[in-house]
Amino acid sequence: MLKFKKITQSKKTKARAGVITATHGEIKTPVFMPVGTLATVKAMTPEDLKSCGAQIILGNTYHLYLRPGTSVIKLFSGLHNFMNWDRPILTDSGGFQIFSLARLSKLTEEGYSFRSHIDGSLHMLTPEKSIQTQLVLNSDIMMCLDKCIGYPADKKDVEEAAELTKRWAKRSKQAWDAEDRKNALFGIVQGGMYNDLRIKSAESIIECNFPGYAIGGLSVGEPTELMTEVADYTLDMLPRDKPRYIMGVGTPNDLVRLIALGADMFDCVMPSRNARNGQLFTSAGKINISNAQYKHDKERLDEKCECYTCKNYSRAYLHHLYKTKEILAYNLNTIHNIFYYIILVKKIRNAIIEDKFEINRFLMPE
Amino acid sequence: MLKFKKITQSKKTKARAGVITATHGEIKTPVFMPVGTLATVKAMTPEDLKSCGAQIILGNTYHLYLRPGTSVIKLFSGLHNFMNWDRPILTDSGGFQIFSLARLSKLTEEGYSFRSHIDGSLHMLTPEKSIQTQLVLNSDIMMCLDKCIGYPADKKDVEEAAELTKRWAKRSKQAWDAEDRKNALFGIVQGGMYNDLRIKSAESIIECNFPGYAIGGLSVGEPTELMTEVADYTLDMLPRDKPRYIMGVGTPNDLVRLIALGADMFDCVMPSRNARNGQLFTSAGKINISNAQYKHDKERLDEKCECYTCKNYSRAYLHHLYKTKEILAYNLNTIHNIFYYIILVKKIRNAIIEDKFEINRFLMPE
Repeated sequence: MLKFKKITQSKKTKARAGVITATHGEIKTPVFMPVGTLATVKAMTPEDLKSCGAQIILGNTYHLYLRPGTSVIKLFSGLHNFMNWDRPILTDSGGFQIFSLARLSKLTEEGYSFRSHIDGSLHMLTPEKSIQTQLVLNSDIMMCLDKCIGYPADKKDVEEAAELTKRWAKRSKQAWDAEDRKNALFGIVQGGMYNDLRIKSAESIIECNFPGYAIGGLSVGEPTELMTEVADYTLDMLPRDKPRYIMGVGTPNDLVRLIALGADMFDCVMPSRNARNGQLFTSAGKINISNAQYKHDKERLDEKCECYTCKNYSRAYLHHLYKTKEILAYNLNTIHNIFYYIILVKKIRNAIIEDKFEINRFLMPE
Repeated sequence: MLKFKKITQSKKTKARAGVITATHGEIKTPVFMPVGTLATVKAMTPEDLKSCGAQIILGNTYHLYLRPGTSVIKLFSGLHNFMNWDRPILTDSGGFQIFSLARLSKLTEEGYSFRSHIDGSLHMLTPEKSIQTQLVLNSDIMMCLDKCIGYPADKKDVEEAAELTKRWAKRSKQAWDAEDRKNALFGIVQGGMYNDLRIKSAESIIECNFPGYAIGGLSVGEPTELMTEVADYTLDMLPRDKPRYIMGVGTPNDLVRLIALGADMFDCVMPSRNARNGQLFTSAGKINISNAQYKHDKERLDEKCECYTCKNYSRAYLHHLYKTKEILAYNLNTIHNIFYYIILVKKIRNAIIEDKFEINRFLMPE
């Protein structure tokens, strides 16, 4: 059973530092979780992830359900053995990928009927099926199936989505209660960019008494200021003694600001995806390694960074690998960006514990 | 200055075990050299290479001359610092890639005039220019520019190519003699599949008294038996107190047979290229990891293998990564195949030293 212990409450901000105890180990919060969509964080070995300080990774239920499929994962008693990762794993419910990726066939009270983006085959995902699938994946933290909605959206649509999310949360909880609850289950607050709908949604989800709470439906196209504002008042509604997870967010600066508002957990494809596109995060700002200015640049990518890539390679070498599309480019770039995110959050945690956390000290030049 | 010390001469075969002392360290022979075309062995870090037991890698002068270009490599005083590899490097002359890859504009006594396969730009490669370029790369072992010829070929063409190779070898030697000779230079015997031409070529190259000798122009389309036959009589012509390198060969079984004939050094893209195509070498023969039969296969790729990939992952996981085109697939597959080649040659070396080397013990089922 998952436990959360709050260690420090920052006095200057709403930030907090804590420790989650999950089946596969402890997670010091705030924490950034690299995204391992298909049972691999793209271009990284588990050893690479550990060298970056990764404490927990995220797996995508939608993707893993389609490939390799639960029949394969079952053979390994879960994702950990299959992919050789022995630290905690969080899995999402599959709902967001159906929203963003699959061809949605039909949405009913029962669940999503959708067609695979791979081969067009027809599948059904219900709250109960999502739990069952995540139990096969055997993740430390499972998520309730929810209905995400884009931005902008009519209030009526947002309200209906939040209502459905509420009913699905109750069904998810029931399905989970029927199990041994070794795998934790988090509820998700929806409600779009509407304060009153977020309140209603939060109340209905908190009623289920989950071991942790997530805020969904952010970073779906809204301006950063609005995202921060919604996150702020929604975080305030969530219990203080449970982990608070903001899903699918964001830039390094988003993380700094959201931690200051009391968020504990984050996941985002940005560091890994941008790495593969040659965009690298440094203490001096973002750089695009494909730029000709780096061709003869003997310096480290980031002089302040202690990641494997920065300690061993130059900008000129990374530029060369990227321009020649060498596979090593994706590996080295991803190691750097993931390390950048994780070390940023780790430094913020240390600052919170010493009560020295100030947003401005951690913002990156934009 | 490069040194070669013969440790053991097998009594049952012509195989020998030795040690080459190069600027960046010792190389125990026989040795397999992974190919690092563009300042990276594709999909591997230097640490991966070391974990596979790589003692020396090969760089391709043609490719490196075009990208990143000598102006970049100069900044790092050579390839070693640029790519973070501190063990020996052998570079080829560039001639073979002009033969196989570039659009040849004109071949004259002076050298090759060719167009880049990247952007069509016009370049000139002479024996002297090849040495100068390899000196910038600062490889431990440089190769003379030669003229390779395909199979089948008219005897007259083969003879002309061997004659030109001879004259270029003398020019290469002169260019090298003008340097401090810290970087060793190997001569290359050509002569196609003709015994008398191989004799003539070998004699003319040996006359230059190089620190080592290579056999070029093999594995260019001829049957394996013919390749082995030509290698056999050509190896017999080469000095016993110098390393003998067979260029661009071959399958694991080719290596076993050629070591038995007295060859010391090999390079081949086969283990790395085939890995990226899903073809993996195992003690039970070659397998294609994309085959559906591996989808639910919990076993190691090769039960007898101690590589990182085999120790940590299953066939089912490798199958999944390969089918989903995950970058990690190329990394894990390459580690296995490179390890397979290197450990094979290492085991043969140990058997030679114990005078227990027999070809049949080391052949892979075909």
